[in-house]
Amino acid sequence: MIPGPYLLYLGAATDVLAVKTARGIAVWRPGAAIGEMAEPECTVSVGLPRMTIAQGVAAGAKTLVLGFANAGGTIDETTSGVVLEAIAAGLNVASGLHMRLSGAPGVAAAAERAGVALVDVRTPPALPVGTGKRRTGRRLLTVGTDCSVGKMYTTLALERELRARGVAADFRATGQTGIMIAGSGVPIDAVVSDFLSGAAEWVSPDRSDDGWDLIEGQGSLFHPSFAGVSLGLLHGSQPDALVLCHEAGRETIRHTRDYKVPDLALCLERNLEAGRLTSPDVKAVGVAINTSGLQSDEAHAHCLAIEDRLGLPCQDPVTMGTNRIVDKLLACFAPSVPA
Amino acid sequence: MIPGPYLLYLGAATDVLAVKTARGIAVWRPGAAIGEMAEPECTVSVGLPRMTIAQGVAAGAKTLVLGFANAGGTIDETTSGVVLEAIAAGLNVASGLHMRLSGAPGVAAAAERAGVALVDVRTPPALPVGTGKRRTGRRLLTVGTDCSVGKMYTTLALERELRARGVAADFRATGQTGIMIAGSGVPIDAVVSDFLSGAAEWVSPDRSDDGWDLIEGQGSLFHPSFAGVSLGLLHGSQPDALVLCHEAGRETIRHTRDYKVPDLALCLERNLEAGRLTSPDVKAVGVAINTSGLQSDEAHAHCLAIEDRLGLPCQDPVTMGTNRIVDKLLACFAPSVPA
Repeated sequence: MIPGPYLLYLGAATDVLAVKTARGIAVWRPGAAIGEMAEPECTVSVGLPRMTIAQGVAAGAKTLVLGFANAGGTIDETTSGVVLEAIAAGLNVASGLHMRLSGAPGVAAAAERAGVALVDVRTPPALPVGTGKRRTGRRLLTVGTDCSVGKMYTTLALERELRARGVAADFRATGQTGIMIAGSGVPIDAVVSDFLSGAAEWVSPDRSDDGWDLIEGQGSLFHPSFAGVSLGLLHGSQPDALVLCHEAGRETIRHTRDYKVPDLALCLERNLEAGRLTSPDVKAVGVAINTSGLQSDEAHAHCLAIEDRLGLPCQDPVTMGTNRIVDKLLACFAPSVPA
Repeated sequence: MIPGPYLLYLGAATDVLAVKTARGIAVWRPGAAIGEMAEPECTVSVGLPRMTIAQGVAAGAKTLVLGFANAGGTIDETTSGVVLEAIAAGLNVASGLHMRLSGAPGVAAAAERAGVALVDVRTPPALPVGTGKRRTGRRLLTVGTDCSVGKMYTTLALERELRARGVAADFRATGQTGIMIAGSGVPIDAVVSDFLSGAAEWVSPDRSDDGWDLIEGQGSLFHPSFAGVSLGLLHGSQPDALVLCHEAGRETIRHTRDYKVPDLALCLERNLEAGRLTSPDVKAVGVAINTSGLQSDEAHAHCLAIEDRLGLPCQDPVTMGTNRIVDKLLACFAPSVPA
């Protein structure tokens, strides 16, 4: 979907949060990007060599990735100048901004003349309606007590741990940052609702190598605004395994005041209950906690308490890794024996 | 949204199923349409006076409604000729076909020149993200064991019964046929999934007259393709009351082979459980069964058995009405006493 290697454009960012996408690519896909490019005002880096477009092309870059976020998600004059320059140099361009690349003056025509692709990762591909038909292969889905509790990070950390053990595993992206990191995927919250399950089926098709599709979860069954997305993703994913994600200390559901973050056991049980519709033997294999709000000793005690109560390995993927969750996963699902 | 009264265009239909939309309007909104118009080949009627466009305009029609369905949902040359003629005569045009009215040659420009509106009921309006904020007023949602089990019919029948008793009640449409009947609504399966709950909140806003919003349900929590839509609608609706809809004798979920229609008690329990997130006191008040596949005596026995097992009034709205379900509804929810 997005041809690599990438040249990452950081714009005029002065805040690491604004370059979350570029940083995600640099951290999770070393080698996917060969350089970064930025305006003189930019004060941050993702640790790659600074390059011009010409230097990027000479080094083999195939796509300029807009790796920053801005208020409003628009493509301003500076950015559209950079995009036109990249196109003229023969680069494809990928963007996760709200405004489509073709909405910037002259960009669509320039891309057509140059024969390069414009990839707006917020725009879903053409999708089928879900069928519920059972697929081959193994799938894990991260589910959450809320939005923004670390589902993408956890899914990528599980991929890294499985690959380190020689187990085939692929992160399947369902959000725009994830799609940039993976180079493909489906922005599930931008999909027309009739195609929700179909989008999840499409992003994790049949596989026959005993490896795992690790599907990035979205939202929460307990979020009053977005639970429909979470349920469609859960059904379409047909997960064999679930990992529950949560942020320690969060008390109310994001962007609401009146909704409490659910109890972890209840949240997991509801996900298993709903998941059984399309995957009757779905199992929980672990809990991933974002403990960034706690001291280190508190964090360990917090995870241990959850572990005791739920009977599942519980780790903060950032500070503790995911090795014990992966142990549990592999213990539950031994590779199938060839006939 | 759709200015009335309507002139209903039946096209060249030779089958009553093809004019379901026109028929729905004629049956459920007597007076909303003042006439029907059709091609010479058309062999069906919805019981209204046959008129030309000129006669319709003379009789006061404000909108030509394309009241038929066809394979592919396209606007063919004959239809687009009729649409252009209607526009030239000063009529607005409303369509539930898959192809947008503005996609037919010359239609958009003609409508702009004439200053009339083109309403594609499959195209959702601009919608907010759901908030989960508790609304005033009372809401009932129909939920189902499957798609196409009679949720729209049941919801309209409940409206008729409540109005006959002098209780303010408004059908809130969430599908294209329903929107044509109501004259407004939201095609929930065409909404971008991020806005699912927001769409349901938008279609049934605060109300303060002690009346009921009766929200047309869609899909089923047990449909592997569409449960996300059903859950978003359930959460956004914040229903005080649920009516469960089912078709007697249906064994497998529509458009699937491997999925069984759920047990009614389980289906109702799951809807109540999920509904409590945004409406903690939600209650089931009845069961509506489509018994069209049964003999009359079998149908009564079937409903009685369900009534005994679920402890709720159970009726086929087509052959038995909804009086007992409405009795239960009104008994559960006495009008609030002014302070």
